[in-house]
Amino acid sequence: MPGETAHENAHGATEAPPTPGTRRPGGRTARTRAAVRDAVLAGLTEHGYPGLTVEYVAAHSGVHKTTLYRRWKDVEGLVADALDLAGEDSWVPPDTGSLEGDLRALAREVVASFTDPAVAASGSAMIAAAFQSERAAVALRHYYAERFARCEVIVERAVERGELPVPTGAAPDSAKGTPPRAVSGTVPGSVLDAGALVRSVSAPLFFRLFITREPVDDALADQAVAVTLAAARAGAFTTGGTAGASRDAAP
Amino acid sequence: MPGETAHENAHGATEAPPTPGTRRPGGRTARTRAAVRDAVLAGLTEHGYPGLTVEYVAAHSGVHKTTLYRRWKDVEGLVADALDLAGEDSWVPPDTGSLEGDLRALAREVVASFTDPAVAASGSAMIAAAFQSERAAVALRHYYAERFARCEVIVERAVERGELPVPTGAAPDSAKGTPPRAVSGTVPGSVLDAGALVRSVSAPLFFRLFITREPVDDALADQAVAVTLAAARAGAFTTGGTAGASRDAAP
Repeated sequence: MPGETAHENAHGATEAPPTPGTRRPGGRTARTRAAVRDAVLAGLTEHGYPGLTVEYVAAHSGVHKTTLYRRWKDVEGLVADALDLAGEDSWVPPDTGSLEGDLRALAREVVASFTDPAVAASGSAMIAAAFQSERAAVALRHYYAERFARCEVIVERAVERGELPVPTGAAPDSAKGTPPRAVSGTVPGSVLDAGALVRSVSAPLFFRLFITREPVDDALADQAVAVTLAAARAGAFTTGGTAGASRDAAP
Repeated sequence: MPGETAHENAHGATEAPPTPGTRRPGGRTARTRAAVRDAVLAGLTEHGYPGLTVEYVAAHSGVHKTTLYRRWKDVEGLVADALDLAGEDSWVPPDTGSLEGDLRALAREVVASFTDPAVAASGSAMIAAAFQSERAAVALRHYYAERFARCEVIVERAVERGELPVPTGAAPDSAKGTPPRAVSGTVPGSVLDAGALVRSVSAPLFFRLFITREPVDDALADQAVAVTLAAARAGAFTTGGTAGASRDAAP
């Protein structure tokens, strides 16, 4: 598909190509929507949200202006739908067989997508648009909520493999006679915050890309993984019990 | 000073008020610069970077347009100087007597400033401007680089107090007979990455505020502290040796 990189989402995954021979009733509508989305991304990349117009999208998608106004209403609607569509892809998180491998693959995907100029441009244009449009901000929130919900399976698999302390049972380390400080998330009522754990490998990367404006690379991705793993094993993502910072009071 | 909150930087610290009776040669220039900065922040907050004009800054600062063009050249120059000025404050990082206390105070400052609408508006306007102006992005990078450099003293004090494994010597835990995995940053040539450690408490907060657009609160701040502390004690911020993710391979 031409311009495939422009379809990549913020994690660098591409949409699944349509299965050959399938022709659902929504086929033409879906193609129109994708063409409009491509034009929106191109416009955001070229001019930013403030410079994006329905006229630009019409000219670059081949979809008539009146159709755009009828289906998407305005520029905000166009941007929000482009994000909604990005969230409808078939991306699945890495499944390497270990928590460390999965988190590393995830972190390196973020670095790879934001160091690829074509992908980085549309991804950062979406993040920028959220500063100027409340509807874009809501769409971005939904996009990432759904994306990170998909990632939580990484944590579930790690718990099943015994790689992480389980909040409701005995933790692997206790068998080795080490003191219980690494497993103090095992109090009744405590919960492993899988959402926070998977966000933790992305946060330092996005923070440097878009807040402190520092370069990111695979070494930083690996550091984010090491930090997240060490914290996860120490029970720092366990909430609702006595775990957390207070447990880790300075000696 | 009227509008003091507008002077607060992204960490929520305010500029030191001028010492009474001091009247340096630059006094009037400094006041002009501060008035211009206030007008720039007000304009960014009200209209965003794309809507900010030299005319707006002139009208809201009381400084003549020709003076603005002469000293700041254009809107980009005005925004960059507002950030430079924000970085010239007398903010110092918290000094509570423990690493955990310092990091918690730091994380909570971020939450407090971005949940205070007045401070949040100017802070996020600066972050937004960096998406649209390369000079604003450079100024933002300098601002945060300098801000986090100030924070590194938190880590230095923690090392002096023996709260963290020291990359070049024995770590506190080794005295207790625990296996050396928590101190494997102690290989020759390894370095404790204080900059990454202090960024680690802010990253999950900024990530949710400006990327995933999720709410932040003190509980999230405390989780960021717990994660950072656990990782720091496990040597995950130690670089250049054999420490890091590979050491923490899944069992």
